[in-house]
Amino acid sequence: MITTLAGGVGAAKLLDGLSSIVPPEELTIIVNTGDDCEFHGLHISPDIDIIIYTLAGLVDEEKGWGIKNDTFNCLEMLKVYGHDTWFKLGDRDLATHIHRTMMLKSGYRLSEVTKDICTRLGLKQRIIPMTDDYFATKIRTDNETMHFQEYLVKRGSVDVIREIVYDGSENAKPAPGVIESIMEAEIVIICPSNPLVSIGTILAVKGVRQALRNTKAKKVAVSPIIGGTVVKGPADKMMRHLGIEVSALGVAKLYADFLDIFVMDEVDAALMHDVERLGIKAVTTNTLMKTKDDRVRLAKFVLDAALMHRKA
Amino acid sequence: MITTLAGGVGAAKLLDGLSSIVPPEELTIIVNTGDDCEFHGLHISPDIDIIIYTLAGLVDEEKGWGIKNDTFNCLEMLKVYGHDTWFKLGDRDLATHIHRTMMLKSGYRLSEVTKDICTRLGLKQRIIPMTDDYFATKIRTDNETMHFQEYLVKRGSVDVIREIVYDGSENAKPAPGVIESIMEAEIVIICPSNPLVSIGTILAVKGVRQALRNTKAKKVAVSPIIGGTVVKGPADKMMRHLGIEVSALGVAKLYADFLDIFVMDEVDAALMHDVERLGIKAVTTNTLMKTKDDRVRLAKFVLDAALMHRKA
Repeated sequence: MITTLAGGVGAAKLLDGLSSIVPPEELTIIVNTGDDCEFHGLHISPDIDIIIYTLAGLVDEEKGWGIKNDTFNCLEMLKVYGHDTWFKLGDRDLATHIHRTMMLKSGYRLSEVTKDICTRLGLKQRIIPMTDDYFATKIRTDNETMHFQEYLVKRGSVDVIREIVYDGSENAKPAPGVIESIMEAEIVIICPSNPLVSIGTILAVKGVRQALRNTKAKKVAVSPIIGGTVVKGPADKMMRHLGIEVSALGVAKLYADFLDIFVMDEVDAALMHDVERLGIKAVTTNTLMKTKDDRVRLAKFVLDAALMHRKA
Repeated sequence: MITTLAGGVGAAKLLDGLSSIVPPEELTIIVNTGDDCEFHGLHISPDIDIIIYTLAGLVDEEKGWGIKNDTFNCLEMLKVYGHDTWFKLGDRDLATHIHRTMMLKSGYRLSEVTKDICTRLGLKQRIIPMTDDYFATKIRTDNETMHFQEYLVKRGSVDVIREIVYDGSENAKPAPGVIESIMEAEIVIICPSNPLVSIGTILAVKGVRQALRNTKAKKVAVSPIIGGTVVKGPADKMMRHLGIEVSALGVAKLYADFLDIFVMDEVDAALMHDVERLGIKAVTTNTLMKTKDDRVRLAKFVLDAALMHRKA
């Protein structure tokens, strides 16, 4: 059994690769919900949707999110009604949010809704939100505190960050299966997602970090930082603003208390020694996932690294 | 000031004609909400939307409802999620229901939401739902009682009707402005809508029938029955099943306690004498509205009939 911690696009690509080489039934995916937000009265779970759409073969590959060939007619009309439309929601995509909202209003938990959506779309992987409770990642700048989506999408990540606020983390309990799947896994994979607002949020849910320290699973992470920058998203900027070293080593340090193996890009080979001084086994490969082959190859490399370490 | 009682497509056409010859600010439209229903967690007001879309020039003229050139991608995806999709909701159309539902959940009343939608779409007519309260038209057959939309859309009006149930009519209060606009109007026009489930529902709201009897306005109705059949919808079938004469005369009888003038089609001229024996002035014209010109011509005829009667 393999359990993974996942954010959005980078995670989705690796999970797509993993799903090609591992029976999907053996894959548990714990997904960040700190990005969850409400627009037009609808509950939106951006990372869950990116993962689900990708694994279901529905995703708009060019954008990395949303459904391919989707239209945006509802959003255009919502604009006429005075709604904020900077968060782009396609017409097909909206069905997911309508369905989710309807189920939540009926009393189902987000984890139950997510399972239902997976079943409807024919997914065999077990996808679990990190929590069923309120948890909102917020960004504090010099002037204001805003929801992460506002920082990321509306403002295009231009602000200088002073603090990341995990709003709700004091009370948010891990969703059913989160702790168990970490404790019972043979391998836990930390996907190449933003270490602060994707993986960091999952780690901020009560009991998750401790479970990662306690589990007998081999814990392997893939660095989202390659040669000091990021493939997608604002992780590098955010790390810089917060005084965290913007490198694979900087990421490794954030996971040092529980990580066994760190998969870095070849361009960062010079940092291997420093990573290993943290007590983490460092391995390098080409971590860029441009094609489906890249995804499968990297997934295989990550798995092999964990298996080899287990035998060692 | 003109106040009208309106159902769906037939009413929308006459109101479109009226809006061409009367300043729209002088037009109050009281709309049936007995057809209102909930799908996918969204509040849908079919007759209000038909009227609004028609007057805003947005309506799909061929179907008579929905928005022209709309797509149905969200609905297609909702089907994947196991939702009933026999009630056809286009993507642009959905924005109206999302906006309405969001406002209702925020505590606004349906009349306030309707006003907001009209403003956003640039309409100057005053459109009022008959009630802000729960009111659901239901159809009782030999075997079951179903919502009117289920009878009309899902089952294609094939069932034999035993009773029309105005569920909620005991408690539903007229929306703000309904009674006042009837009492203060110079002319009240009963649109050519289903006399049982469009006009009949409005008449079933507390105080409306009495206001129509009491007002000093001239009250003129247009028959939706032409030559014993209906242009659109199941009014003729419903009347037959309930033992009501399927003719313009049958309609006139339903309004006899308050009506001054009845506009019938030329093909029904033979019934004029019987209508007048009810104490109603009967006039005939071509009441079919196939073109925009037809709408304007009929609206003008209705208005002239009321004005002439007033002078007489």
